[in-house]
Amino acid sequence: MKKIEPRTLAGFMELMPEDQIQFNNIKNTIIENYEKFGFLPIDTPVIEDGQVLLAKAGGETEKQIYRAYHSDPTAENLVLRFDLTVPLAKYVAKHYNELSFPFRRYQIGKVYRGERPQKGRFREFYQCDIDIIGKGQLSIINDAEVPSIIYSIFRGLGFESFKIEINNRKFLTGFLLSIGIPIGKHTDILRILDKSKKVSEGETKSSLLCYADEIQVNKLLNLLAIKGSVDQKISWIQEFETTNNEFLTQGINELTDLVKYIRLFGVEDKYFDLDFSIVRGLDYYTGTVYETFIEGYEEIGSVCSGGRYENLAGYYTDEKLPGVGISIGLTRLFDKLKDVIKLKKKCVSDVIIVPMSSDFSYAVSVASMLRNAGVKTEVCCESVSFKSKLKYANRMGVKYIIIVGEDEEKTQKIVLKNMVTAEQQTLNTDDAIKFIKEF
Amino acid sequence: MKKIEPRTLAGFMELMPEDQIQFNNIKNTIIENYEKFGFLPIDTPVIEDGQVLLAKAGGETEKQIYRAYHSDPTAENLVLRFDLTVPLAKYVAKHYNELSFPFRRYQIGKVYRGERPQKGRFREFYQCDIDIIGKGQLSIINDAEVPSIIYSIFRGLGFESFKIEINNRKFLTGFLLSIGIPIGKHTDILRILDKSKKVSEGETKSSLLCYADEIQVNKLLNLLAIKGSVDQKISWIQEFETTNNEFLTQGINELTDLVKYIRLFGVEDKYFDLDFSIVRGLDYYTGTVYETFIEGYEEIGSVCSGGRYENLAGYYTDEKLPGVGISIGLTRLFDKLKDVIKLKKKCVSDVIIVPMSSDFSYAVSVASMLRNAGVKTEVCCESVSFKSKLKYANRMGVKYIIIVGEDEEKTQKIVLKNMVTAEQQTLNTDDAIKFIKEF
Repeated sequence: MKKIEPRTLAGFMELMPEDQIQFNNIKNTIIENYEKFGFLPIDTPVIEDGQVLLAKAGGETEKQIYRAYHSDPTAENLVLRFDLTVPLAKYVAKHYNELSFPFRRYQIGKVYRGERPQKGRFREFYQCDIDIIGKGQLSIINDAEVPSIIYSIFRGLGFESFKIEINNRKFLTGFLLSIGIPIGKHTDILRILDKSKKVSEGETKSSLLCYADEIQVNKLLNLLAIKGSVDQKISWIQEFETTNNEFLTQGINELTDLVKYIRLFGVEDKYFDLDFSIVRGLDYYTGTVYETFIEGYEEIGSVCSGGRYENLAGYYTDEKLPGVGISIGLTRLFDKLKDVIKLKKKCVSDVIIVPMSSDFSYAVSVASMLRNAGVKTEVCCESVSFKSKLKYANRMGVKYIIIVGEDEEKTQKIVLKNMVTAEQQTLNTDDAIKFIKEF
Repeated sequence: MKKIEPRTLAGFMELMPEDQIQFNNIKNTIIENYEKFGFLPIDTPVIEDGQVLLAKAGGETEKQIYRAYHSDPTAENLVLRFDLTVPLAKYVAKHYNELSFPFRRYQIGKVYRGERPQKGRFREFYQCDIDIIGKGQLSIINDAEVPSIIYSIFRGLGFESFKIEINNRKFLTGFLLSIGIPIGKHTDILRILDKSKKVSEGETKSSLLCYADEIQVNKLLNLLAIKGSVDQKISWIQEFETTNNEFLTQGINELTDLVKYIRLFGVEDKYFDLDFSIVRGLDYYTGTVYETFIEGYEEIGSVCSGGRYENLAGYYTDEKLPGVGISIGLTRLFDKLKDVIKLKKKCVSDVIIVPMSSDFSYAVSVASMLRNAGVKTEVCCESVSFKSKLKYANRMGVKYIIIVGEDEEKTQKIVLKNMVTAEQQTLNTDDAIKFIKEF
């Protein structure tokens, strides 16, 4: 029979088991932290009605959509989700009367975008999102809680040096207005600010000069150039406060409260900072915005981003639903940082039982006792050589193996071998369980 | 603005958070058990190349396929996976040289089938699969380990009464040959046996008479009617042993070994039985086959099924890869049995902090301390009435709330309230943490 090549599509991550274990450990660390902060899980479908999911989409997003059909591509309007935010909007609008607000939800799932496949770009990838959705209103304290979640996760992943960079879109709008830039030019200016870290100051300046005069541009460059501690930056911006500019006043108040509460939530100063060039999604965020950078890996971009928005589900409901949320692109994070993340491997077997005799009865009973005691146990039952069994155990990376033969069966003992030190000891099963569990 | 109705497609499960928590608890119980038995996780893409995934498909399967495309439905041959077995075959063939055998893998993920939507039928549903894949050979002990995994899972889900029904396809083939039914008629006969539990004996008899004579049919009906213990059934079939029928000899030997090892793996006799009417997938399984029924819920069918197959990946590779595996249809299991499964809810917050004053600083610091100690904590930061906060805490179903006001801040204490008994006690934060963790 002619064989078909068992290939996997380009842009779709498929890991070997040892990498998958590490991937799952990272995912579980994220879940544990989301739950520690009281977020509830939801799991929306991967396929949704195109009319519902594309209510807002357009431009680039629409071009990247994966569509699905069951029998007739022209008759069915089904799309694969391209993020977890639009499904959340649908979910909250649909279940509005059954939910308790503020609604704190997390969702971790695969999303689909038809990007041009290239190294580090994925067409199927995991997003790990949290959002806190208010009913009509939502306290700024929620915005301050978000960095403490990011902090908790990246500390949990073993990172010592990273920085959560924070800005406020109301402040940005207020600042632009205060230096005399009319609202019609804000989008263009913000787009330049957003790129300013990736280009030279000269380039930023000449771009800005297309939309603002020299004095305005210098004030903007001063803003971007502020150095110092968070408190120094807060003092610096507080000097701009005017009574006539509500955006500026609100933005500064929000940033001030934010910093106060971030500290109360236990985030050390060295892990967060204000960065007035951060903008994020132009037509979505309206207040606090976040980005997160791993020290030494700034070139991979922000590993956790998000912000505050005015209204989650305007396409589906008249209810005003302000929210704040973040997303971690887990597939990309893993792809770029898997060798840096130092998490203890958790899910390979604790022990592999290697029988010496060809009767496996005793080995199987021992396996059963270990599993009943909660020890992750594998037992080699194939009729292969003892050497092959040892080789298999070695490749699986377990720390301990248990060797059993006729002598052990007679005395109802086992031989526990440390695969690292090669030390062996003869124990009864109960003591072996205790020993393995303590390790 | 005209609003779009936020609807979810028919046949796609979307749960409220409290049900999602329960769903995830079941999923995690399954994962814990798969890992306890040493299975390694893999996660293959949802979208695969149609040429690869449909190598074997045809008939009903092909009709149910969901297809996907990014820009041109006529140019792209992409399909959504309809099970986790074909992706496993692809995975093992593709990564053959990098894997260690026997390869024990688990995968839990959504699969897609365009079934006619109706109550209890899903177009997107979770499958939870394990398979043990051998390189050229695979010991029967693996077949005996599988019921111990099923046992461990359903006991873990809190079920007291269920039965793992076991048969062997070699035995069935051998039995049919031994009573003189030629191989060409086996498929038709097996199809009738497979349905025999759902129809009357009379109906089974008249169906069988289309393919066999009266004497043969009576022998078949005798086989289906055997009553008694597993050992009695084994004795009964051992009487059929002949030297001229290798299928029969092998089938009986395998069943005998299987029962011996199932017991050594710790499965009590009341949880498994032999049922000679079980057939499963006609053109796939070649040895042991399993079905699992929950007592009192037999009408929902088998909740966990699978079996032994000769060759996993014949479409992709010449390597002979025998395997044994099972699948749990989690979405359907949840849909049918969610009210019966008694698992402790694990992931809502342990405690909700309800501040009395309008300054939330102290509440936030307390939340931070609790979370650092690993307590799942939520803090009500909205400027709503104390009564609204209590109502929210009630709806979230937490056992404890912590009340903090000016007095507590001054004395650096908290008030811990048991929401069930309404008992309150004033504690310092460390003692509160200890108290909550002990509970």
